[in-house]
Amino acid sequence: MDIVTLLGSILGFVLVIGAMAMGGDLALFYNGPGLLIVVGGTFAAICVTFPLKDVIDSHMGALSMFMKKKGKVEDVVNIMVRIAEISRREGLIALENIQTENPILKKACQLIADNADPQLIRDTLTIEIGTMKRRHNISIEVFQKLAGYSPAFGMIGTLIGLVQMLSNLSDPTSLGPAMAVAILTTFYGSIMANLIFLPFAGKMRARTSQEELHLQIIFEGAKSILENNNPRLVYEKLSSFEPPKERKSSGR
Amino acid sequence: MDIVTLLGSILGFVLVIGAMAMGGDLALFYNGPGLLIVVGGTFAAICVTFPLKDVIDSHMGALSMFMKKKGKVEDVVNIMVRIAEISRREGLIALENIQTENPILKKACQLIADNADPQLIRDTLTIEIGTMKRRHNISIEVFQKLAGYSPAFGMIGTLIGLVQMLSNLSDPTSLGPAMAVAILTTFYGSIMANLIFLPFAGKMRARTSQEELHLQIIFEGAKSILENNNPRLVYEKLSSFEPPKERKSSGR
Amino acid sequence: MDIVTLLGSILGFVLVIGAMAMGGDLALFYNGPGLLIVVGGTFAAICVTFPLKDVIDSHMGALSMFMKKKGKVEDVVNIMVRIAEISRREGLIALENIQTENPILKKACQLIADNADPQLIRDTLTIEIGTMKRRHNISIEVFQKLAGYSPAFGMIGTLIGLVQMLSNLSDPTSLGPAMAVAILTTFYGSIMANLIFLPFAGKMRARTSQEELHLQIIFEGAKSILENNNPRLVYEKLSSFEPPKERKSSGR
Amino acid sequence: MDIVTLLGSILGFVLVIGAMAMGGDLALFYNGPGLLIVVGGTFAAICVTFPLKDVIDSHMGALSMFMKKKGKVEDVVNIMVRIAEISRREGLIALENIQTENPILKKACQLIADNADPQLIRDTLTIEIGTMKRRHNISIEVFQKLAGYSPAFGMIGTLIGLVQMLSNLSDPTSLGPAMAVAILTTFYGSIMANLIFLPFAGKMRARTSQEELHLQIIFEGAKSILENNNPRLVYEKLSSFEPPKERKSSGR
Amino acid sequence: MDIVTLLGSILGFVLVIGAMAMGGDLALFYNGPGLLIVVGGTFAAICVTFPLKDVIDSHMGALSMFMKKKGKVEDVVNIMVRIAEISRREGLIALENIQTENPILKKACQLIADNADPQLIRDTLTIEIGTMKRRHNISIEVFQKLAGYSPAFGMIGTLIGLVQMLSNLSDPTSLGPAMAVAILTTFYGSIMANLIFLPFAGKMRARTSQEELHLQIIFEGAKSILENNNPRLVYEKLSSFEPPKERKSSGR
Repeated sequence: MDIVTLLGSILGFVLVIGAMAMGGDLALFYNGPGLLIVVGGTFAAICVTFPLKDVIDSHMGALSMFMKKKGKVEDVVNIMVRIAEISRREGLIALENIQTENPILKKACQLIADNADPQLIRDTLTIEIGTMKRRHNISIEVFQKLAGYSPAFGMIGTLIGLVQMLSNLSDPTSLGPAMAVAILTTFYGSIMANLIFLPFAGKMRARTSQEELHLQIIFEGAKSILENNNPRLVYEKLSSFEPPKERKSSGR
Repeated sequence: MDIVTLLGSILGFVLVIGAMAMGGDLALFYNGPGLLIVVGGTFAAICVTFPLKDVIDSHMGALSMFMKKKGKVEDVVNIMVRIAEISRREGLIALENIQTENPILKKACQLIADNADPQLIRDTLTIEIGTMKRRHNISIEVFQKLAGYSPAFGMIGTLIGLVQMLSNLSDPTSLGPAMAVAILTTFYGSIMANLIFLPFAGKMRARTSQEELHLQIIFEGAKSILENNNPRLVYEKLSSFEPPKERKSSGR
Repeated sequence: MDIVTLLGSILGFVLVIGAMAMGGDLALFYNGPGLLIVVGGTFAAICVTFPLKDVIDSHMGALSMFMKKKGKVEDVVNIMVRIAEISRREGLIALENIQTENPILKKACQLIADNADPQLIRDTLTIEIGTMKRRHNISIEVFQKLAGYSPAFGMIGTLIGLVQMLSNLSDPTSLGPAMAVAILTTFYGSIMANLIFLPFAGKMRARTSQEELHLQIIFEGAKSILENNNPRLVYEKLSSFEPPKERKSSGR
Repeated sequence: MDIVTLLGSILGFVLVIGAMAMGGDLALFYNGPGLLIVVGGTFAAICVTFPLKDVIDSHMGALSMFMKKKGKVEDVVNIMVRIAEISRREGLIALENIQTENPILKKACQLIADNADPQLIRDTLTIEIGTMKRRHNISIEVFQKLAGYSPAFGMIGTLIGLVQMLSNLSDPTSLGPAMAVAILTTFYGSIMANLIFLPFAGKMRARTSQEELHLQIIFEGAKSILENNNPRLVYEKLSSFEPPKERKSSGR
Repeated sequence: MDIVTLLGSILGFVLVIGAMAMGGDLALFYNGPGLLIVVGGTFAAICVTFPLKDVIDSHMGALSMFMKKKGKVEDVVNIMVRIAEISRREGLIALENIQTENPILKKACQLIADNADPQLIRDTLTIEIGTMKRRHNISIEVFQKLAGYSPAFGMIGTLIGLVQMLSNLSDPTSLGPAMAVAILTTFYGSIMANLIFLPFAGKMRARTSQEELHLQIIFEGAKSILENNNPRLVYEKLSSFEPPKERKSSGR
């Protein structure tokens, strides 16, 4: 799945660079100071907009998207059903030994094993889910704001170029190339927004919504285990989270 | 109903192509590399924005819109009233044999026939409805993002064309045609957004809201059957979902 | 009130046409193919976006706005108070004979007269209000989408005109008029959006919000009549829905 | 506070007119027909969008903003605490004699003095607050729509001017002035939106949110008086509505 | 953390000014009247949009951002746990002596120490949180509106410049420089919006959301202390507010 993200990014750049090269010299599209003002201005604005820590976290999160494998709804449902079975067979205390990479599932198991108050367990899981959402939403917002600032600084660069060009019209033959250079920053800003920042914000949102779904399954599963533990009914309920086509036949 | 969707699409393209042909040569409007950058760039960006599976599902959903017949509110209400009558006459267990294409209605009937806890039935149906909404919303979002990316890549193509044209103003007579070519990508992007992606996103939203309404009727009907089964009252309540003009006179 | 809607529409067109005529020949502003692409393209796109039935319903609703008289909050309050008085004097059964044009009020009266379960009455009225809102919101959305498509197809028409003009610059004297023609479609799209579609969408929203208010008064009134019927208190509560200046002095 | 609103409006116009005068003749910026199409078109569109009564109410409300003095949170809190004291000392019946300009507070006092059912009092106040919000929101929306229509009609005027100019390029020296006139309507629309309509919409929203806060204080105060009347605790609770810096030291 | 905000602001201005200086004379970019109309117009519009007090409070808040150190989630959690321990060991009355800079925490402690009704404590804290949110949201909105007005007045300035230039085309060689000057106000507006107002609005939102989180921790902590005070469980619950990586190992 992640290879597609990478291939999509590469395809986009190949197409754009191909179109640039077809019309003549690729060097036409390089303007160091213009690149600096768009990239630098966008970076400066984002560092004022968000605490540096959030900006860095957001980029680390984007990088990890290319590497981490996406979990499946089915797996989470199966884990919760297995936990329901274990807790029914061996008692709630047995949940203390559940091994899982998901820290929130781990916490839920420990609280259940500790025989904590059901209200406390619900409150704690609700807070955990809220904390995760808040963290992810900040990362998504960082990319959305980057997608807003980059065309704005592209336009600022173009305005600077236009003012310089128009103030100095002595040589009419230089008009075209000067205008071309002025337009370049708008081009950089558009590319950054539409090939990098907006798609990344979208992918992070898709990932976040997937993770939130997993947490909701854990939450509903834990509630069922606490209230009235019946692994078959837990499965009946949680399998409703899966897309219809992917449900295993329930043998009925 | 679906024939209208198809005719609308065709009409739109006929009008636009007609307007293009009237002014002279249709070939003026063909620019291979431009088409490649707009279509390819949009496709690349969407593949980064969403998991590939969601992009494919979304397009399959759009295709199926032209083929599947839209259900009617009246039919769903009638089915629920008939189920209420059967369950009153033959007992809840009889619902196990209800034949229906709607998988959620099927699940509701089985849960009722199993004499499941009403709270579990409500929870399960709520999750089912949520799962369906989430799936549909992703498809709608794919088309909305496509409608956002296509004019953006249209503009990127135009910027590339302008930079190439302006850098090379030696021959003033080529200025017009070069500019015409540069503008073409903006034109492609607008057409894609306004004749394909936005209307499809809208139609999917209309379909989704229709399906959600059907699920809500099933949900309310199941609740009534569980709480206090009286087919006449079930009809009285569910018929409120129908537009006033289409209700059959209730014989009162 | 409705005469104002009509006069507003006429005034807007008179002003725009006057401004067009003042600068010279009105015929300058007529371009058949341009008009066709904007009106036809907008119509085609809306027929893909919404089921044909919704598009037609929406336009019928707009027409009826010019003809139907708007109800007054005061009247609805008075009706509910009268119903409270009747039901107190003659018993709930007397509500069966209430004559009213409002189908939802009619249904509420029948349910009360039937001595239906209060919960069922509340549920039924809630569903009725939801059904009305959904229907009206679709009509509003149709006009809002029309207001979005018309300038977009205006711009598509202008792009077509520009490409044709720029590809064929042999005769410089024809540049101005060709450009004028190209701009016309943008003009058509703006006029359609700002003089027709957006104002109609706004008026429908105002009407809908008024009708929702009436239903809310009926809902609150029915609740009071069921719970603890005292016409004076029903008036005291429902009169809070009227704007302060228009309340009749409560004689206190 | 209101003098600032007035001074702000004047300052804005002085600056804009100053900038216009500095560049030469102020008469350059006057174009009667252009002004007519922007002002008249905007007015025509708003009269279709909203019932005339709402448009007039909205402008009356804007005028009254310059004249009415804004209430203070502190005063409302003090009034509620005083009412709590009176009702404790002299009984709830004493509230009948409370003198206040706020009609909702008046109504609350009368209902309490009448010994009405607490649920009825809560319902009535909730409806009153909803009625006020609805009325104010319509006024805000009128100004927001005006701020949307005015630049749109500015652009329509410019398109008309451009079409007339481009159709008639015989005299190249008239090109500049004709273009200047065409641009004027866009200028008028921007000024109207940014110096009048948007700021007025914003100020009305600020005022509305202030008034809503006052009603919420009255609501919470009335609830406390009904439930468990202790003036010190009423103060302790209601003073939380004041900004921290403005609270009088609570003597603790 | 705050040094980054400052460095970001400086970097942005250095980059933009550097780009301006590279193309020639920095003086090209200075236009006194243009600066006056953009800055003054924006200021005038904001003074009509908001009460002067809100505008000033908002700017004071922005200044204080550079100076105040940001609190940490961990610290707030630790304080609440310590308060839980104290209240368990020494009784609720001991909370009266808690020393804290947070006025809302102070109020919560006093209310608990006073043995106030739990419902009153919850209501009071809810109102306090609402008051803080309302105050902060106004400040954020002031900067967002400033970010909207500044490019609008930039465009108004450019329109004024264009009208003056086009009305006076006698000297073609002055066309370029006059156009450059006209464009400058658009440039000023963009810089103000994208380097100052939007980033400041963003930073204030980040700060506000952080402070809201702290208040939520205090609220949940106070609830736990009141309901069932067990410092270990309070920690277990409140630590869920911390990002997973930053939690101290709970020793289990």
